[in-house]
Amino acid sequence: MVKVGIIGVGTVGTSVAQILKDNADVISARAGTEIVVKSGVVKNLSKERGLDIALSTNVDDILDDPEIDIVVELMGGVEEAFEVVKKALKNGKAVVTANKALLAYHRYELAELAQDIAFEYEASVAGGIPIINALRDGLSANHIESIVGIMNGTCNYMMTKMTNEGVSYDAILKEAQELGYAEADPSFDVGGFDAAHKLLILASIAYGIDAKPEDILIEGIENVTKDDIAFAKEFGYAIKLLGIAKKDANEVELRVHASLISQKEMIAKIDGVMNGISVVGDKVGETLYYGPGAGGDATASAVVANIIDIARSGKSTPMLGFDRPMEGKKLTLKAVENITSKYYLRINVSDRAGVLAKITKIFEDNNISVETMLQRPALTGSANLLISTHIAVEKDIQNMIKEIEALEFVNFKPVMIRIV
Amino acid sequence: MVKVGIIGVGTVGTSVAQILKDNADVISARAGTEIVVKSGVVKNLSKERGLDIALSTNVDDILDDPEIDIVVELMGGVEEAFEVVKKALKNGKAVVTANKALLAYHRYELAELAQDIAFEYEASVAGGIPIINALRDGLSANHIESIVGIMNGTCNYMMTKMTNEGVSYDAILKEAQELGYAEADPSFDVGGFDAAHKLLILASIAYGIDAKPEDILIEGIENVTKDDIAFAKEFGYAIKLLGIAKKDANEVELRVHASLISQKEMIAKIDGVMNGISVVGDKVGETLYYGPGAGGDATASAVVANIIDIARSGKSTPMLGFDRPMEGKKLTLKAVENITSKYYLRINVSDRAGVLAKITKIFEDNNISVETMLQRPALTGSANLLISTHIAVEKDIQNMIKEIEALEFVNFKPVMIRIV
Repeated sequence: MVKVGIIGVGTVGTSVAQILKDNADVISARAGTEIVVKSGVVKNLSKERGLDIALSTNVDDILDDPEIDIVVELMGGVEEAFEVVKKALKNGKAVVTANKALLAYHRYELAELAQDIAFEYEASVAGGIPIINALRDGLSANHIESIVGIMNGTCNYMMTKMTNEGVSYDAILKEAQELGYAEADPSFDVGGFDAAHKLLILASIAYGIDAKPEDILIEGIENVTKDDIAFAKEFGYAIKLLGIAKKDANEVELRVHASLISQKEMIAKIDGVMNGISVVGDKVGETLYYGPGAGGDATASAVVANIIDIARSGKSTPMLGFDRPMEGKKLTLKAVENITSKYYLRINVSDRAGVLAKITKIFEDNNISVETMLQRPALTGSANLLISTHIAVEKDIQNMIKEIEALEFVNFKPVMIRIV
Repeated sequence: MVKVGIIGVGTVGTSVAQILKDNADVISARAGTEIVVKSGVVKNLSKERGLDIALSTNVDDILDDPEIDIVVELMGGVEEAFEVVKKALKNGKAVVTANKALLAYHRYELAELAQDIAFEYEASVAGGIPIINALRDGLSANHIESIVGIMNGTCNYMMTKMTNEGVSYDAILKEAQELGYAEADPSFDVGGFDAAHKLLILASIAYGIDAKPEDILIEGIENVTKDDIAFAKEFGYAIKLLGIAKKDANEVELRVHASLISQKEMIAKIDGVMNGISVVGDKVGETLYYGPGAGGDATASAVVANIIDIARSGKSTPMLGFDRPMEGKKLTLKAVENITSKYYLRINVSDRAGVLAKITKIFEDNNISVETMLQRPALTGSANLLISTHIAVEKDIQNMIKEIEALEFVNFKPVMIRIV
């Protein structure tokens, strides 16, 4: 019999215990052994959870319990959780976590500590979708060319509603908060940080590359307006918050931002709170994984799959997919300023003669070539220029935006959305 | 160093050897060991393959070679391949195969023989998509409620072209043959047999259910016409050849047939030669896996992933996902006549008075309730009745079709397509 201790018995922890009980028949048949939750650690003992497991408020009641085989860390946060899982590994216990922030900061230290002990984290990226499993095992024969993912359901819900129902950003954010899809402080989701944590985890498995959130380009969806969505629709794009990892020679781009993507791509067809991740391998081509990226039961499904895997075979795969670095071929992070992309810009200008000439001159001076341009009337006396470019370099775009912003007939800082 | 022998060095076998060479850097880093192809067995030694491996025409040169760790079986066929892999297992060699026909008939005998030896077969279903991996490991915490998959790229290519370009079945079959998507004798693909083999493999992992192709409902796409596609479009459906496994209490339905499915479903959005499989678990909800279902490199990507997995950890998961049967809860195959579905019927009638009344009376006599009905003029003097029903039972539908076919003003056997 395999015994599990759960540290943090909130929504996901309760679902983990419930699944191990509800589905004990199929789980024990698949694992070849019974798996039971022996104990849990919570902050507040008086809260009713409807579970028949022993609860305490002291993590050591699990970490020092010689009967516990697998520690499930669902407490969240970074440093405190790091101390807890380190102690679990030191005590020889396998660890399963759903904690993406912990991994975004400490995955390489953990991989080092977990050389001979299973440390699994399927639920940390895209909830119930077994994307870690796919990338680490199913696609292991490939050099990964790119990963493009909808990794945040809140943002995808908001972008879908804005696109399909013409709702404004503020109205849909309020609705998402009322539905429980967005937090009271939504910045972790809408600012792209949640997606960035997940992207960093996938990038380690795909490329063996170490980076922290502060090293990469992270932008959110806060500046997307109805005008941008109208442009997107007119030119056959969807707008999505995407996490993107892309190999270019010996460098890897890592970035999270609102993106225009052709409606013909499968990933553009993923709507609502669902997540989806497209992976291109040099041999297999494109494969895509779709499903629920959040929710207690969906996330717990991934946690329990890891528990079953450990019960079956202990440690069967290196934690981050690499048993050793690629000889003489270490990939490095591409500097943000060197990223290349097509870009969309919305520039709000006072509607007068000579404006277009001045702006297009600045495009030319910065080596940026226009692909399409639309002019739309905006508020009284102003107009929006909606412009898409051919491939350009990030630093040129940023420089151009500064120069345009400085023009006296330009009313706001131009909004830029990258085209994928 | 792990040494591989390939039996059957055709398109896929050549790709396997090539990937192990091209991607040796990333593969050895992930596996923690070198993996090399030592030898291959072919039918015709004089054919140029561009590979630098030892070739022979005798399978025993691989099966009896004490240096070979992993036998890759890509010879195809059923009984001869069965003998080869049995001998490989007997000689203590791990086996990797892409042979769906072998597994459709012999997977339980092989699972018995491979108790302690790795036997992997990711490439046998949906080519490069790691669906075995997902279903056996990633979703292991769930009772699987249903699997609905586009598992044959040839059929999906044909249905997509017929839908988007209005091409006739015969014209598109000819085109698919010219492009190499369909064989000279296309019946294995368009008749649904290829998809059925794959469905049976997935059903074993999901449900632990043993069945052979002759036990289940298998129909193809041969009877789909432009009229059916026009009906589908008008009512918001796509037409796809689907493999379906569905749990209903203690029974499992297994069936392959042309299907009408709402255009809003993700699986309906999968076009062209691509494959996709939607899996609904009781805890995770729907997840979907999309990618190339065929092609040398895509299929070989899955074969090599299995080789890496074995090089990493030997046998880590029971071959068919179950270490032992579910106690007292064996699922059984639902009889075809008891399957329930919504149905679409196309009935070609001579256009005269009283026809509709007689046909609707037969519907009523068989307990079948009409949801929508369209009448369209067809060839001179005849009309097509296009009818969709509410949920009905297969045996009632089959009986009704017989009664309708017997009417003297009905010109052909009615065409029936199930609605998913």
